[in-house]
Amino acid sequence: MKKKIDLNQKILKSNEEYAARNREFFETNDKICLNMISSPGSGKTTILCRTISELSDRISIGVIEGDVESDYDAQRIKQTGGEVFQIETKGACHLSAAQVARALSNLPCEKLDAFVIENVGNLVCPSAFELGETAKIAVVSVAEGDDKPAKYPAIFAKSKAMIINKTDLLEAEGLSDFDIERVKKDARKLNKKIKIFEVSARTGQGMQNWYDWLCEQVKK
Amino acid sequence: MKKKIDLNQKILKSNEEYAARNREFFETNDKICLNMISSPGSGKTTILCRTISELSDRISIGVIEGDVESDYDAQRIKQTGGEVFQIETKGACHLSAAQVARALSNLPCEKLDAFVIENVGNLVCPSAFELGETAKIAVVSVAEGDDKPAKYPAIFAKSKAMIINKTDLLEAEGLSDFDIERVKKDARKLNKKIKIFEVSARTGQGMQNWYDWLCEQVKK
Repeated sequence: MKKKIDLNQKILKSNEEYAARNREFFETNDKICLNMISSPGSGKTTILCRTISELSDRISIGVIEGDVESDYDAQRIKQTGGEVFQIETKGACHLSAAQVARALSNLPCEKLDAFVIENVGNLVCPSAFELGETAKIAVVSVAEGDDKPAKYPAIFAKSKAMIINKTDLLEAEGLSDFDIERVKKDARKLNKKIKIFEVSARTGQGMQNWYDWLCEQVKK
Repeated sequence: MKKKIDLNQKILKSNEEYAARNREFFETNDKICLNMISSPGSGKTTILCRTISELSDRISIGVIEGDVESDYDAQRIKQTGGEVFQIETKGACHLSAAQVARALSNLPCEKLDAFVIENVGNLVCPSAFELGETAKIAVVSVAEGDDKPAKYPAIFAKSKAMIINKTDLLEAEGLSDFDIERVKKDARKLNKKIKIFEVSARTGQGMQNWYDWLCEQVKK
């Protein structure tokens, strides 16, 4: 058991070293980097596609796209005209700081204001691995139920903002029990400063507040 | 790097030993055990509550409830009259075979026909850890999008059955792009024998086929 703990510390230490280098890169070059974390299917890619497209005349966003397999999400980002680098983890459950460093060396960083890491769809593991990001952003879909902050607290405790997505589905009879106030209350219990956006990335509803906040984060 | 691989093998080996003991227990005692795996919020607990309640006069089901934190799901199972043992993983992203062994020693096994392990909500990690189960069951909600088998193939490749849940939401305008045939086709590409159930655990729609299949699995 002792050995396991030591090795975990070693792996985390190596990740921390890469994360520190990434962080230094962002700070030195006056860029921001958001690490977006959620369950599979919460709508991260749809949020990003709409954001890149709507903000194209205000800021330039590069995406580091993490998936267990496939490059479907990267293709969707490309179709919006966004810069993207795909990482297939081939089974691994989170992105590492070394993978982010590799993405940075392949993206046209000089012309980008902000980076968004779309982490592997997983509400547990990615929250434990620092990537050098400026901030973490938690995303939840209303279709996942209103108990996610209570059941998966780590990511909500560590995030600067939370996006509650797919609010257009709240009209459906099947979601009549969903209590959005519980989600917000539980998230704030873990993290009283967390900024909360209620959006439908599909319809665009509520996205303007997110755009304005994102542009404020970009140091220009 | 060599050291990491060796240690992973050791951890997996230890897990395999517990899994083998669990498997032997199920086989010797003529019980079945299903390991239910999905993203957070796909509706596993709702499926289980309805199943336990509807099948109460046909089979007796015990639930091994895995959560990162909280016992909300175990409380819901208890309210249906089901036998349940809660495991809080306190941050860990999957259940281990040792945890399942501990649950078995705390459940009234002699009066149960079937066990269902509700694994931690995570479409990646739990598929890599054998728990001694008779079969894995993958659950996806229609609100997660139709690309889950393509993007998270491991669990669909390894499962005996897949439950596509929340079909009542398909009427919502926001899910008009969801292609259920794509989900089924992609899952069958990975696993041509996979049994597929389309259900709404909330309304009960389609659940009868699942009940009948589950009862067939129980060796009586």
